[in-house]
Amino acid sequence: MILGKNFSNLKVILVEPIGPLNVGSVARLCSNFEVDELRIVSPKCDIFSLEAKKMALKGQKFLKQCKVFDDLQKAIFDCDLVLASCGRIDVNKDSFFVSSEDIFNWTLSFKKINNLAIIFGREDSGLTYDELLLANKTFNIPTSINNPSLNLSHAVSIALYELKKSSKRNFDQELKVFNLASSKQIYDSFLEIEELLLRVGYLLKHTSRAKIDKFKNYILRANTSMHEINVLRGIVHQINWYLNNTKRN
Amino acid sequence: MILGKNFSNLKVILVEPIGPLNVGSVARLCSNFEVDELRIVSPKCDIFSLEAKKMALKGQKFLKQCKVFDDLQKAIFDCDLVLASCGRIDVNKDSFFVSSEDIFNWTLSFKKINNLAIIFGREDSGLTYDELLLANKTFNIPTSINNPSLNLSHAVSIALYELKKSSKRNFDQELKVFNLASSKQIYDSFLEIEELLLRVGYLLKHTSRAKIDKFKNYILRANTSMHEINVLRGIVHQINWYLNNTKRN
Repeated sequence: MILGKNFSNLKVILVEPIGPLNVGSVARLCSNFEVDELRIVSPKCDIFSLEAKKMALKGQKFLKQCKVFDDLQKAIFDCDLVLASCGRIDVNKDSFFVSSEDIFNWTLSFKKINNLAIIFGREDSGLTYDELLLANKTFNIPTSINNPSLNLSHAVSIALYELKKSSKRNFDQELKVFNLASSKQIYDSFLEIEELLLRVGYLLKHTSRAKIDKFKNYILRANTSMHEINVLRGIVHQINWYLNNTKRN
Repeated sequence: MILGKNFSNLKVILVEPIGPLNVGSVARLCSNFEVDELRIVSPKCDIFSLEAKKMALKGQKFLKQCKVFDDLQKAIFDCDLVLASCGRIDVNKDSFFVSSEDIFNWTLSFKKINNLAIIFGREDSGLTYDELLLANKTFNIPTSINNPSLNLSHAVSIALYELKKSSKRNFDQELKVFNLASSKQIYDSFLEIEELLLRVGYLLKHTSRAKIDKFKNYILRANTSMHEINVLRGIVHQINWYLNNTKRN
C-alpha cells in the first residue's frame, strides 16, 4: 500500500480511456506506486488487448482485476475522498481547484480516510464539468502554457508520485548511512597537505593560509567520508615518499 | 523555458533508448515542460519513426531538432551541472545518491547554471556505473520495492515535474555565488591527476581505474567551481614541475 497511516485504500479511476497503451501504462504505474485497485468507467478501447498487456508488464494483475463501471457516480460509490485531475486551467480559480502538490499535502490533514479515489479523464477532453463536481477537490499539474496537455499516463505518474511523497512525510526521514570524517581528521590531513604544498612550492609560507582555507572549505562542502579522507592522506604520503627518494637538480 | 532565474538551459539526455514510443513520449514531455533540447546517445531504435512521431504530438520539433551523439561524454561536453536518474537502489548509499525531491531543491542553491543536463538510461538496464560517474548527482524516484522499475517516459515526467516545481519556489535563502566547472574541465583535470598519481606510484596502471573512480565521484559530489578545479590543476602542475627538477635516487 502506498499510503500513510491516515489512508487505507487507494483507487485509480480512468474515465472513458481511448488508448490501450495508456491503460496498460497506468496498470504498470499502479504496480510501481502500490495502488490498491484500478477502476475504469466505460472504456473506449480493449483494456485486455495485447497492447495494453505489453505496456502493463508487472502491472498486468491490475488489468485482470480491473473493475469496470458504466458511470463515474457508481465507480466512486465507496470512496470517502475523491480527487480529480484537470488539465484545463480555465475551469475554476477558487479553492476547488488547486495544484497537485497542495492537494496531496491537504489529504494528510484527514485523520482517517478509508477509500481515496483519484480520477483521470479522457485523453482528448478530460472530465466534464459535471464529473468534476463529483470530486471533493480538483487538482492541476503545472505545465507549459503553450502545450499544457499531458499524456494520460504521465498525469497519473505525477499524481501517484506526489501522493507517495506526501504520504511519506508522515514518517521520520530515513537517516543516511554515511561515515563522515571528523573535524579532527580533516584538520590533521590539512596539516599534511599544507606541508606538502609548501614543500613543492605551490604555497608560500606567508600567503599559504588564505589559499589553504579555500581548499579546506571545498573539502568540508563535499561531506567527506572517513574513507575519502584516508584516500587524500594516502596520496599525500605517497608523493612525499616519492619526493624523499628523489634529489633536487 | 522551464527554469528559474538560476538556469539558462535544460537538456534532457536519453542513453541508448530501445523504444520509439518512449522516445516520442519524452519529446512530448519536453514540450509540456519547456525543455530546451533533447539529446540522444546511440539510439537503439528509429527515433524518427511514425510511432515516435505519433507519441510526440506537439513535441515533434524535439525529435526533428534532436542531437545524436555516439557517447555520453560527448553529449554533456557543454553542461556545467549533470544529474542522472537511477532506478537501482543498490548503487550507492551516500550523498551522491539522493531522492528526486532533494536533488531539484539542491539545484536552486546555485546562482547560475548555464546548461543543466538530466540523463536517463536504457529501459532495461539503466545507466552503467561509469555513466553514473559522469554526473554531479544521481537521483532516485521512490517507488514500490516489489516493482520499482518505472517506464522511461514516466521517470522523465516525474523528474521534469519536480524540476519545474522546485524552480518555481521562491527561496529566501541566499544564493551561493558559484561558477561550476564544466564536465569537460573536470574530465581534463582528471587525466592530469591520474598521470601524476601513476608517476609517483600511488596508482598502478592495472588498478588505477577503480581508485581514480572513487576520487572522481568525490570531486563531482563537491560541486567543484571553476576556480577550485584550477586550484587542483595548479597543484598538479606544481608537483610535476618540482618532480621534473629532481632526480630519482
